[in-house]
Amino acid sequence: MEEINKAFYKAKLNVQWGDMDAARHVNNIMYLRYSESARMGFYEKLKIVDLDFSDLSIILAWQDCKYIFPLTFPDTVLMTYDIIEIRPDRLIGECKMYSEKYQRISAISKSTVMAYNYKELGKVSIPEEWKNALTSIYGKGILT
Amino acid sequence: MEEINKAFYKAKLNVQWGDMDAARHVNNIMYLRYSESARMGFYEKLKIVDLDFSDLSIILAWQDCKYIFPLTFPDTVLMTYDIIEIRPDRLIGECKMYSEKYQRISAISKSTVMAYNYKELGKVSIPEEWKNALTSIYGKGILT
Amino acid sequence: MEEINKAFYKAKLNVQWGDMDAARHVNNIMYLRYSESARMGFYEKLKIVDLDFSDLSIILAWQDCKYIFPLTFPDTVLMTYDIIEIRPDRLIGECKMYSEKYQRISAISKSTVMAYNYKELGKVSIPEEWKNALTSIYGKGILT
Amino acid sequence: MEEINKAFYKAKLNVQWGDMDAARHVNNIMYLRYSESARMGFYEKLKIVDLDFSDLSIILAWQDCKYIFPLTFPDTVLMTYDIIEIRPDRLIGECKMYSEKYQRISAISKSTVMAYNYKELGKVSIPEEWKNALTSIYGKGILT
Repeated sequence: MEEINKAFYKAKLNVQWGDMDAARHVNNIMYLRYSESARMGFYEKLKIVDLDFSDLSIILAWQDCKYIFPLTFPDTVLMTYDIIEIRPDRLIGECKMYSEKYQRISAISKSTVMAYNYKELGKVSIPEEWKNALTSIYGKGILT
Repeated sequence: MEEINKAFYKAKLNVQWGDMDAARHVNNIMYLRYSESARMGFYEKLKIVDLDFSDLSIILAWQDCKYIFPLTFPDTVLMTYDIIEIRPDRLIGECKMYSEKYQRISAISKSTVMAYNYKELGKVSIPEEWKNALTSIYGKGILT
Repeated sequence: MEEINKAFYKAKLNVQWGDMDAARHVNNIMYLRYSESARMGFYEKLKIVDLDFSDLSIILAWQDCKYIFPLTFPDTVLMTYDIIEIRPDRLIGECKMYSEKYQRISAISKSTVMAYNYKELGKVSIPEEWKNALTSIYGKGILT
Repeated sequence: MEEINKAFYKAKLNVQWGDMDAARHVNNIMYLRYSESARMGFYEKLKIVDLDFSDLSIILAWQDCKYIFPLTFPDTVLMTYDIIEIRPDRLIGECKMYSEKYQRISAISKSTVMAYNYKELGKVSIPEEWKNALTSIYGKGILT
């Protein structure tokens, strides 16, 4: 759990009772809601991406989620979000979700975003400005 | 906003980006998700209601929501939940939701729950034990 | 159930497994998601309201829901939506939701919408054009 | 689109207005709600898995989603669900989601489920009975 403190972006969310489904665990899609919140929080903290989706912004191209330990209500999710790889046309991020109550990892979600021009409705290469902002945090090792 | 402190039950929830809809406000149903969380938190704090829904518990019979000021991401919802009326066959509760960012009330949701025996699948009168627990908090004035 | 056919707007939706919660019924907020779909479908069919929310459109001011018979997965919800009252500053609509499997009513949700100018960010009176479109369907008896 | 007819399980779902988010597309997590519905529908049709989650049933271990073409309201999602691989300890399924309006593929979600004994709260090998039911549909080529 101490690895949480190394992340550039961390956040907490309360599990809501209604996040659970008929199997009486937090429903699988809610983990992706949580990781979306972490991703948006990350880019908000990074400041350089327009989150109004009216100009140059991000678009989600792919994501996965590995379910390790089921969350239940009541609990608090501790989340980290970091970029782990920069490719010419996409950024790969990783969100780790932990149960505060059980002090263990619950799920890991990776996601790939592309740069998208919402005015011209087309994908563009990852801007140099974004690369610079990210390598100043994570180093040049994440460029591939 | 100081009225928040008078409530028996209060809680905070982070607005998630995905709680917003295409009108770019928090979607109307999310306020009822928040108030459900407050209601469950209230009964959990009260301790006397089984929240496994396997025995004597609550069932939602009716609810409403008055939308006063639209929430947006990012913000934190401050919530209170109180019982405002006890009838022989139902409890009427009220959840107030405030925007922490704008320091004003955002929505009010009233809800009616009945006592329900999940083993025998039938409604029952509000148990005396529940009435006693609630009147010890709110006084006998809420009995009608 | 034959009253369904009298409605100006009717629609069907499949209950999704994930619409159920830990009490193993469709969660209370999903009924308001269904009724939102009916409301949007109604205004789409009516044609005169801008549903891009960029100009003169509707804004939800209040809604309630009476829970009569719990829906479960799998089932299909049959829905009707009608305007039942026109006031100078608001329209009151009613959505009835039926279980196709059990052939009975499941929930009724009333909702109040106001006319809202999304450019100038302010409420306006219900436009005459809307009143005319609605009274041509329902008669002048719904004006109050 | 003709490949839809070859699937063992197919279903249709109406996109709901509230499935869209502030970027005015169907929100990323809703595709996983749709694919969950397809997965549950598939196992329901297969009949041999207990979907009450009280005994031997399935548990989701991993899933991903590739976003190809954004869905918007109004539209209908056409979905297929098939098992593409059986391993000793897991089943790998694939859900394809198509836009009926645009007659093109919108997203593909793969998911891995394990067999789980909800009474003893532990994972078990994929039962022979499940393997037989699946190979009678798909042939022995999917065993790995």
